[in-house]
Amino acid sequence: MKHMKPVIIAHGGAGGVNHPLRRARGLIRACRIGYGMLMQGSSSLDAVEQAIMELEDVSIFNAGRGSSLNLEGVPEMDASIMTSDMKFGAVAVITDVRYPIQVARLVMEKTDHLVLGGKNAVRFARIMGIPKYNCVTQEKKRAWQWMRKKLRSAYFEKLPDLAEYYGTIGVVAIDRHGFITAGTSSGGITMRLPGRIGDTPSPGAGTYADKNGGVGATGHGEEILRHLLSFRAAQFMARAPAPIAGEKVIAFANKYKCRCGLIGIDKKGRIMCVNNTRAMSWCYIKNGRMHIFRW
Amino acid sequence: MKHMKPVIIAHGGAGGVNHPLRRARGLIRACRIGYGMLMQGSSSLDAVEQAIMELEDVSIFNAGRGSSLNLEGVPEMDASIMTSDMKFGAVAVITDVRYPIQVARLVMEKTDHLVLGGKNAVRFARIMGIPKYNCVTQEKKRAWQWMRKKLRSAYFEKLPDLAEYYGTIGVVAIDRHGFITAGTSSGGITMRLPGRIGDTPSPGAGTYADKNGGVGATGHGEEILRHLLSFRAAQFMARAPAPIAGEKVIAFANKYKCRCGLIGIDKKGRIMCVNNTRAMSWCYIKNGRMHIFRW
Repeated sequence: MKHMKPVIIAHGGAGGVNHPLRRARGLIRACRIGYGMLMQGSSSLDAVEQAIMELEDVSIFNAGRGSSLNLEGVPEMDASIMTSDMKFGAVAVITDVRYPIQVARLVMEKTDHLVLGGKNAVRFARIMGIPKYNCVTQEKKRAWQWMRKKLRSAYFEKLPDLAEYYGTIGVVAIDRHGFITAGTSSGGITMRLPGRIGDTPSPGAGTYADKNGGVGATGHGEEILRHLLSFRAAQFMARAPAPIAGEKVIAFANKYKCRCGLIGIDKKGRIMCVNNTRAMSWCYIKNGRMHIFRW
Repeated sequence: MKHMKPVIIAHGGAGGVNHPLRRARGLIRACRIGYGMLMQGSSSLDAVEQAIMELEDVSIFNAGRGSSLNLEGVPEMDASIMTSDMKFGAVAVITDVRYPIQVARLVMEKTDHLVLGGKNAVRFARIMGIPKYNCVTQEKKRAWQWMRKKLRSAYFEKLPDLAEYYGTIGVVAIDRHGFITAGTSSGGITMRLPGRIGDTPSPGAGTYADKNGGVGATGHGEEILRHLLSFRAAQFMARAPAPIAGEKVIAFANKYKCRCGLIGIDKKGRIMCVNNTRAMSWCYIKNGRMHIFRW
């Protein structure tokens, strides 16, 4: 039985620059709760799930209660979780649940499948006892109405850069047994087509973990998915410490003009935290000390 | 402009051993049609789409009209297509279309997204002019009813090995310009949970292509997805000819007890065709000569 010092890292997306203080506060709170659990002997799986649930509850993050709305004003959400023993669970375009990450974990632990999607994922959640919850906040509804107006007048005006409105939340942790978990929860891109599935529910794209480390990615989901960024980052971590692996994966992303940010922890507890977007907020706790960064 | 000799390869799944002759006939027909198009100057994208549509129409293959039914008797289908310039399109748990691969290509070419899922993928298909089509054949309905009976009496009898009932169809081709396309269409696992999304709509799992080659995988979707088998095969192809890359990826799959089969073509037109399942049927045409294999 290995005896590792627990580490936890969380990010709040690589998109918007709004609400920097509330972002920081949310990330600090989630990291503290997760780290507290790890120190008391919880598995990284429990700690990551709990930390993500905290972030899903903060409406400024694009996940759970803060999810962006699609073209029709519906928040279809993706979430996934993966552990260093290669277990994986995910939900795609799920609606009407408060904590998509909980359902992703249930898919991992209670079914023979890796991904459930659409209305049947919602039904699965109900069968598993997850209550119905409406994720649309007034804030998001107003933003959606404003955006819809913009789209309607797009013939005359310049369109807002929708790419600024993406983002995800993600947490990676290693527990005292060296067991690593990575989890991601995403509210998608504002004004996306209904039914759009992003990078989150694909292992190796938004979330990945194996014996070398765990990774969470955020940014332009389509590009992350196409280039399997999390998997590439984990492959780099197999041969180099996490910070160097981070440099390599960002160099790769730059080559393909893939706008993204990644967090990760390798098997020795070292931290990866890189981005090539205008802003990214993240926070980690290692050796009892917290580090916070936003932009 | 490169001038390559076109090559096309198709498989009919790594699962069932039933109807060997009809399987062979379907694969031969699909390969001939695709190869004919390639010889007349079509792109590999057009040839692969057409060859897959031919296979989706043959009800003994687990795709399109032959799709397996889920627990509720509904054929939810996945399909994906990827080209060597890293374009990707997919549909997940789509219903009521005759050729899911057509919709996957439309997602690739007509949207900013890579994957559409569920009822909204069906709506997208309708908007794009794809007519409604009921994929449930009498044959599949009877098989489903028989299986349901078995499941009901499962307390008393041994369950049939559901793993025997998986399978997919896939085609990879390289055209005279050296442009590679890989496509997969899947009818899923019999008696799967409604909403289950398999390996097909994830790039790098069921389908992958980049400048080094194109790959299609079939077998136990969950394991293929977890281990990103197609992507690993393409990575091996970057460093070795396709046949050797095939040996390496099967050695990897054996290590993780992942039951699968893979087909592929590397950038020089060499063939990969491997499996570790009891049966796999495939066919390819290279230099005008056809090779067929079935068990």
